Amino acid sequence: MTVGENLTLLTDLYQLTMAQSYFREQRMENATFSLFIRSYPPNRGYFVSAGLLDVLEYLEDFAFDAPALDYLGSQKLFSDDFLHYLGDLRFTGNVSAIAEGRLFFKDEPIIEITAPIIQAQIVETFVINQIHLQSLIATKASRCVHAAGGRSVVDFALRRTHGTDAGMKVARASYLAGCAGTSNVLAGSRYGIPIVGTMAHSFVMSFDREIEAFRAYAASFPDSAILLIDTYDTVAGAASAVQVAQEMAARGKKLIGVRIDSGDLATQAREVRKIFDEAGFADCKIIGSGGLDEYELAELTRMKAPFDSYGVGTKMGISADAPWTDISYKLVDYQDRPVLKLSAGKNSWPGKKQVFRFRGSNGELQRDLIGLREEKLPGENLLEEVMRNGRLSKTYPSLTQIRGVFEADFASLREDVKAIRDPSEYAVEFSPELRKLRDEITRNIGSS
Amino acid sequence: MTVGENLTLLTDLYQLTMAQSYFREQRMENATFSLFIRSYPPNRGYFVSAGLLDVLEYLEDFAFDAPALDYLGSQKLFSDDFLHYLGDLRFTGNVSAIAEGRLFFKDEPIIEITAPIIQAQIVETFVINQIHLQSLIATKASRCVHAAGGRSVVDFALRRTHGTDAGMKVARASYLAGCAGTSNVLAGSRYGIPIVGTMAHSFVMSFDREIEAFRAYAASFPDSAILLIDTYDTVAGAASAVQVAQEMAARGKKLIGVRIDSGDLATQAREVRKIFDEAGFADCKIIGSGGLDEYELAELTRMKAPFDSYGVGTKMGISADAPWTDISYKLVDYQDRPVLKLSAGKNSWPGKKQVFRFRGSNGELQRDLIGLREEKLPGENLLEEVMRNGRLSKTYPSLTQIRGVFEADFASLREDVKAIRDPSEYAVEFSPELRKLRDEITRNIGSS
Repeated sequence: MTVGENLTLLTDLYQLTMAQSYFREQRMENATFSLFIRSYPPNRGYFVSAGLLDVLEYLEDFAFDAPALDYLGSQKLFSDDFLHYLGDLRFTGNVSAIAEGRLFFKDEPIIEITAPIIQAQIVETFVINQIHLQSLIATKASRCVHAAGGRSVVDFALRRTHGTDAGMKVARASYLAGCAGTSNVLAGSRYGIPIVGTMAHSFVMSFDREIEAFRAYAASFPDSAILLIDTYDTVAGAASAVQVAQEMAARGKKLIGVRIDSGDLATQAREVRKIFDEAGFADCKIIGSGGLDEYELAELTRMKAPFDSYGVGTKMGISADAPWTDISYKLVDYQDRPVLKLSAGKNSWPGKKQVFRFRGSNGELQRDLIGLREEKLPGENLLEEVMRNGRLSKTYPSLTQIRGVFEADFASLREDVKAIRDPSEYAVEFSPELRKLRDEITRNIGSS
Repeated sequence: MTVGENLTLLTDLYQLTMAQSYFREQRMENATFSLFIRSYPPNRGYFVSAGLLDVLEYLEDFAFDAPALDYLGSQKLFSDDFLHYLGDLRFTGNVSAIAEGRLFFKDEPIIEITAPIIQAQIVETFVINQIHLQSLIATKASRCVHAAGGRSVVDFALRRTHGTDAGMKVARASYLAGCAGTSNVLAGSRYGIPIVGTMAHSFVMSFDREIEAFRAYAASFPDSAILLIDTYDTVAGAASAVQVAQEMAARGKKLIGVRIDSGDLATQAREVRKIFDEAGFADCKIIGSGGLDEYELAELTRMKAPFDSYGVGTKMGISADAPWTDISYKLVDYQDRPVLKLSAGKNSWPGKKQVFRFRGSNGELQRDLIGLREEKLPGENLLEEVMRNGRLSKTYPSLTQIRGVFEADFASLREDVKAIRDPSEYAVEFSPELRKLRDEITRNIGSS
């Protein structure tokens, strides 16, 4: 049911075949790999960093267990001395990274891992897998929250995320990027995220009459009931909900809200708002859901649809308009020698790097400069050492702290870069030193 | 790192709030929920069933453990008697399903779960999550394999699947639907799928000269070496690979193949094929990879690009052109009374169902008829009972057997329905009895 206790074997086979070849050649020198996104998906002008905690925990736990070694041994690919070496292998490297919750941009290294090349290579698959998913979702969620214009957004995606791990990571990444809660109970339990829930159409359908379903639910949840009113007819459902709200009021209780999950949401919300207001329930909330994403939310915000909050599911949980990005983990330094790759359309920048961030007079983000790590440039250093010799360099921030980091960064970003459609491109430049190094190495490869 | 041992808590909160309300009302009668896909994503004319095994294992293991109950207790939502009830709750229901590997179509119930309504409701989230992902990916993979026109296709998706669970399920679902293997070592270990791998650009870059990388790899894998030749220049890389092939031949060994991962694949494959043929290595294989999907593969097949096999990654592993479908789990029967839902645009069909499949004189799939389960109609019954009283009804087929089921079904489907673009729609009809029942219930709701 779960992916298994030990994820060390969750890697691409070529990581292990290359490792055996490095081992045979005794190539044990340090390599630095840099993880970055090469281009923006449509309508994206920024990314939100997420997933680092899972990467660091994976690196700390990295070890092949006996069943893994037995399986590898059965493949007739690996020598006994190499398998023995793998059995003792732990991650002993250093990691620099952009903190979770921070905004980053195209071409900027999110994580740089420096370790003996075998280690740095085997971990590639998991590192990409987690940072790709979580940064993608955090970015998508931040767009949804932004588009909702101050109404709260909660994660309803679990049923259609790509598998169980994605369900957990979507809950965490979307909370990190401003969502108010999740429907995912296990994520609530594991991450301390507020859990939220209403009722389903099937609940209403299981009763002979809609109002009986509402009454039963209100009896079970006198202090937290939210009723789903669109199973048959939204206006009639609202009238029944008002009746139940009156019955609750007579018992000294309050109906918290109603949810609309289908149809023309803006029109229905107005009708339902009117019904509740006229019945004297101006503080009964209206929750909208059903196929929402940032584009729909922006439209509802523009139309001033009287929703108080939104449940956002599938399209946020799989980042439907951009379900993948061109993320790469590239060798940039080996044996203290910067390297690069010239494959068609896939050029990379050599060397260990730092990202320097510059702000305007009001603290707004102005531009980033990607330089070499040893360069001493003004501007905030975005990459910080988070792991040294395989151990965390310092206490990892809490999810609440990470939310704060995101909120501060996002508030400092210009509106036109945050735009839901056709955002402006944020200025990301390369330092003259880095450009010089790249040109030198390109010339050397060309003449070799 | 993993989702956790016990996935019973991996559900939406509303499943549990509804459950408490059912419990309070002592509504313990059987409900039947039906899982189906409402419409085809673009360019899809069929679906491949996958994910049932995970669902059945989840149902067999269903139980809230003590930490789960403690967490729920901490939420101030649930009564002590309900939490006590949850602690004893197991899945005791029956499951009918379309077998893994079989083709199915729009509106057809893939799974029908009949159980006391609390059970059938709580499991919804996981059931949708797994069937959605795995059927989506099996369908996508079958399209890739079909488009490759007889060349083998292997799964390289792990690094960009949405999380670790998706990485595992993509390997299994794509193998089930005709892929020849996976790069995912843990999936190889868990599912017995052949694992495949070559080398990465970083391996080549870590050596001073490309040919040294090739020699080192060939020394480590004298019987299974595949060399990646596009790190700097594909034609020059091919020439170096030929030299290594000659050195291997002198030692009585054989270079298995080369891989091209970037640029104009068809043109490069022709140039590389010519280089190897002229050097006397006509049996050295050429593997293509890099951003491939069924559309690219169909084009390479049409151009007769001389590839022997393909590695397909991201776009298959997230079903990039259709990363989600409109899959629903709907209450269709409660207390032995068929029910349906009338929400705008989301109408459902009432009652427990069966799918009857009709074939032409040559065994080709001709049309499906969705009827009520108790109807006795000609045609093959697609749904079979797979679980009774919470236990598997019979031994579950092996992954190899499931591959065979898929292969046979796929071979029986008309080419125009399998088309990569604009497929014809396969005939799916509803039985007169089912139509009559739907009309009756709709009238009754309208007049109530």
